[in-house]
Amino acid sequence: MYRPRARAAPEGRVRGCAVPSNVLLLLAYLAYLALGTGVFWTLEGRAAQDSSRSFQRDKWELLQNFTCLDRPALDSLIRDVVQAYKNGASLLSNTTSMGRWELMGSFFFSVSTITTIGYGNLSPNTMAARLFCIFFALVGIPLNLVVLNRLGRLMQQGVNHCASRLGGTWQDPDKARWLAGSGALLSGLLLFLLLPPLLFSHMEGWSYTEGFYFAFITLSTVGFGDYVIGMNPSQRYPLWYKNMVSLWILFGMAWLALIIKLILSQLETPGRVCSCCHHSSKEDFKSQNWRQGPDWEPESHSPQQGCYPEGPMGIIQHLEPSAHTAGCDKDS
Amino acid sequence: MYRPRARAAPEGRVRGCAVPSNVLLLLAYLAYLALGTGVFWTLEGRAAQDSSRSFQRDKWELLQNFTCLDRPALDSLIRDVVQAYKNGASLLSNTTSMGRWELMGSFFFSVSTITTIGYGNLSPNTMAARLFCIFFALVGIPLNLVVLNRLGRLMQQGVNHCASRLGGTWQDPDKARWLAGSGALLSGLLLFLLLPPLLFSHMEGWSYTEGFYFAFITLSTVGFGDYVIGMNPSQRYPLWYKNMVSLWILFGMAWLALIIKLILSQLETPGRVCSCCHHSSKEDFKSQNWRQGPDWEPESHSPQQGCYPEGPMGIIQHLEPSAHTAGCDKDS
Repeated sequence: MYRPRARAAPEGRVRGCAVPSNVLLLLAYLAYLALGTGVFWTLEGRAAQDSSRSFQRDKWELLQNFTCLDRPALDSLIRDVVQAYKNGASLLSNTTSMGRWELMGSFFFSVSTITTIGYGNLSPNTMAARLFCIFFALVGIPLNLVVLNRLGRLMQQGVNHCASRLGGTWQDPDKARWLAGSGALLSGLLLFLLLPPLLFSHMEGWSYTEGFYFAFITLSTVGFGDYVIGMNPSQRYPLWYKNMVSLWILFGMAWLALIIKLILSQLETPGRVCSCCHHSSKEDFKSQNWRQGPDWEPESHSPQQGCYPEGPMGIIQHLEPSAHTAGCDKDS
Repeated sequence: MYRPRARAAPEGRVRGCAVPSNVLLLLAYLAYLALGTGVFWTLEGRAAQDSSRSFQRDKWELLQNFTCLDRPALDSLIRDVVQAYKNGASLLSNTTSMGRWELMGSFFFSVSTITTIGYGNLSPNTMAARLFCIFFALVGIPLNLVVLNRLGRLMQQGVNHCASRLGGTWQDPDKARWLAGSGALLSGLLLFLLLPPLLFSHMEGWSYTEGFYFAFITLSTVGFGDYVIGMNPSQRYPLWYKNMVSLWILFGMAWLALIIKLILSQLETPGRVCSCCHHSSKEDFKSQNWRQGPDWEPESHSPQQGCYPEGPMGIIQHLEPSAHTAGCDKDS
C-alpha cells in the first residue's frame, strides 16, 4: 500500500540529522585510509626498495657469471617465469604444486571463491572457466552466507543454552550470561586464532606469527594469498589436514564475524544515537525493546544494549539470529 | 530479565524444524562445491597441464641454447625471480611497477584490505606491517561496512524517492515501484558491470571479457589479483583513473550487494517458510508486516515480500536500511 504521509515523517527526521553524520563518517573513512597508507608506506616502502635493489644486483651478478646470457634473454626468461608462476605451473623440476588444478586444488579454489577469500594463488586462465567462475560466485557467495548464517545461529544457540543452564543453576542469569559470553569469546579465540597457527607452523614450516597472520587474513576473507596452506612442494600433507582446515575456515569465519560485529556495533552507535535513540516517545522505547524480545539474549559485554545499531551490518551480521523470530512472538 | 519459559517455546519450535533443513542445506552446499570442483578441474586442468609442459619445454631449450647455465643455476634463478615477484620488486630493468609500496600502491593496498578484496598482488613482507595489517583490518573492515551501509541506504532512498515521485504523477504506486526498481537494477548493471570494462580495456589493454571478469571479481570482494588495474608498467595512468576506480569499487560493492541479496533471499526462502511463515496466528502475520513498516518500501521484483528472510545475511544485507527505524514508528 502506498502511504506517502506516513512515510514522509520518519524519512525527513532521518535525513535531517544524517547529513553531518555522513560527512563525518566519510572524513573518518578517508582519515583511516590515509593512516593505513602512511603506515604501510613507511613500514614496507624501504623493505621493498631494498628487496628490489638486491634483486637487481643479483641480476647483474648473474649476467656477469653466465656470460652466454644477454640482457634481453634474461628479461625474456624472467617474463616467462612470472607468467608460468601466475599460471600455477610447477616451476622447479622436482616439484608438483597444489596450484596445478588437481582435484584438491580445484576444491580449494571453489572454497576460496564462494567464501570470497580469493587467495589468488590459483585463478582461472581459460575464458570458459572465468565465465563459469562468475556464475559460480553469483550463486555460491549467497549460499555460503546462508550456511554461515545457520552456523552462527547454532553457535549462538549453544552459548544461549549454556547461559540459561548456568543461570538456572546459579539463580544469577546476568552473571551466567556474562560468563557464557566471555567463555565463548575466549574459546573461540583459542580454537580459531591462537591454536591453529601451532598446527600451521608444524605442517608448513611457518613461524607462529606467520601462521597467525595467515589465520586472520583467511578468516577475515581478505586472503592475500602470500601464505596458503598445502602449497609447500617439499611437504607431504595428510588428507585430514586439508579437511580440518576447510572446517576451520567455515567455523572460524562465523566466529570472527561475531568479533567484527561487536566492533561494528561500537562504530555504528553514534549514528544510531542520531537516527533512533533521540526519539524520546514511549512508543520508540517500546519498539527498541522489541529488538530484545524473548528469544534474543544480549550478551552483557555487548555494547548494543539500549541503542542497538541497525540491521544491515555486512557479513558480521549473521550472529544476531533470532531477533526477528523473537519479535514475531512478542508483538502479540 | 531472565524469562526461561517465554524463551523455551519459540526456541523449541525453531529447532524442531531446523534439523532436516540444516542437513539439506549442508548437502546442497557440498554438492555445489563438488560441482565447482568438477567444472574447474575439467576446464582448467588440461590448460594448466599444457602450460606446465610448455614451460618445462622452454626451460630445456633455454638450457640447450645458453650452455653456460646449468640446471641448479637456472632453478636458483627461477626461485629468485618468483621470490622477487612475490615481494613486488620491479623485475625488468625499465619498469617501475605499482606493486612497490609507493604512496599510491600503499593506498590501494589499504583499500583492498578493508574492503576484504585482498588482491594479493601486494602483501606486507615485514612482520611489523603484517601485525599492523591485522589491527588495520580489524577496525577497517567494520568501518568499511558502515560506509557501505550508509551508501546502500542513500541509493535505496534515491530509488524510493523516484518511485514515490513517479507514483504521485501516475497514480499507480505499484507500477512506479516496479519501474524505479528495474530502472535502478538496469542502470546499476550498466554503470558498475557493463560500462567499466570498456574503460579498463582502453586503459589496461585487456579484452572486454577480461575487464568484465576483473569487475565482477573485484566487486564481489573475491579479488584473485590475476587482473589488477594500474599494474601495466608500459602504461601511463592519469590520476583521475585511480580515483574513479576507487569510487567505482565503493559504489559498485554496494550495488552488487543488492543483487547478491536478492539471490540470497531466494535461497533463504525455504528456511524461512519453515521457521517463520508456518506460524499461522494473526499475531505472527502482524509481526511479519512490521518488517514492511511505513518507511520500508519493498521493490515489487523482490522475492522477499510476504515471507521476508531473516536479517543476518552477510555483506549483502546493507540495502535493507530503514526497516528497524520503521518498526519504531509503526508499533505504536
